[in-house]
Amino acid sequence: MKTFRFKTYLTSNVESLESINKELLNKCKQQQFKKGDYLLREGEISKTSYFVEDGLLRQFSVDDKGKEHVIQFAPENWFMANREGECFNLPSSYNIEAIEDTTVFIIEKELIENLSKTNSVFLNFNIELLHKHIASLQKRITQLQSKTAKERYLDFIKTYPDVLMRVPQTYVASYLGITPESLSRVRKEISINK
Amino acid sequence: MKTFRFKTYLTSNVESLESINKELLNKCKQQQFKKGDYLLREGEISKTSYFVEDGLLRQFSVDDKGKEHVIQFAPENWFMANREGECFNLPSSYNIEAIEDTTVFIIEKELIENLSKTNSVFLNFNIELLHKHIASLQKRITQLQSKTAKERYLDFIKTYPDVLMRVPQTYVASYLGITPESLSRVRKEISINK
Repeated sequence: MKTFRFKTYLTSNVESLESINKELLNKCKQQQFKKGDYLLREGEISKTSYFVEDGLLRQFSVDDKGKEHVIQFAPENWFMANREGECFNLPSSYNIEAIEDTTVFIIEKELIENLSKTNSVFLNFNIELLHKHIASLQKRITQLQSKTAKERYLDFIKTYPDVLMRVPQTYVASYLGITPESLSRVRKEISINK
Repeated sequence: MKTFRFKTYLTSNVESLESINKELLNKCKQQQFKKGDYLLREGEISKTSYFVEDGLLRQFSVDDKGKEHVIQFAPENWFMANREGECFNLPSSYNIEAIEDTTVFIIEKELIENLSKTNSVFLNFNIELLHKHIASLQKRITQLQSKTAKERYLDFIKTYPDVLMRVPQTYVASYLGITPESLSRVRKEISINK
């Protein structure tokens, strides 16, 4: 029988609380998306979080000129959510798209709320996830403010070791806030110095 | 008798739960900092959050060349915290400095945890604060990726209506990820078009 990544993740992160993990696995439905499908479109209100079981998602915005800007990738074992909708019932500023055929576990806000109220281990886990998200976003801002294209690229490889070969280079450049030409230069430079 | 901003904030945001608000006001000590004082230095581990009662804080990083990058300002009624230390016991990547004489209420992690466990209204309030923080950081990333200097500046005025006149323009430029010269140009352009 297949062991779900979601189960392995929960077992190793929510301090092996068997009862919670069972409830999460039972109550979170799986859903499949085809490459190119949208899980969420800008303007929609969503209270759903996703755990990526298989595949790859990207969260991105589109500016006034129609240019796309990738804010986050989510490969296997990553979560993705629309925080504006989840708490404040606001329409999303972002799109979430499957950039490979993708299977996710769907985690509804209500389930997170109920588990947080009844179980302090889960509550801590959820709070830690939110803090981790904040810390990673702050790091990204600092990078956009102060790091060179090369430094950003090297950090990208560290953060997403298996994403680089799975996405178009334009997405990577967009995530890094550099031009595709700069990305090419950096990659060439690094391969020469190896 | 002086009514604290912290009390007004709590009363209007934590759904008037008098018992919680009393506990927060009793258990969170006030502390004064002089202009130029550091509340936190890069490398220190801190589990403390601050509510700004009076004054103004900035959170910033320093890059390898010694250049400073402002990630956030916190005037009156704002919170500031080091999320890396709070949950993960990690040294801070950022400095927090008082850029005016500042009075804060100090909120220890333990108090937040205890109140979250015992009271679902406070728990929701805390979760909402974290979501709000995430949404604002995502917005900032999108801005750094895709907005013009003018758009970033106009959004800054909206986010921090009373900060502009209280801080050196170099801090504003740093926050916006533009040069002080670009900031001057934008300000001139806007004042001409008024």
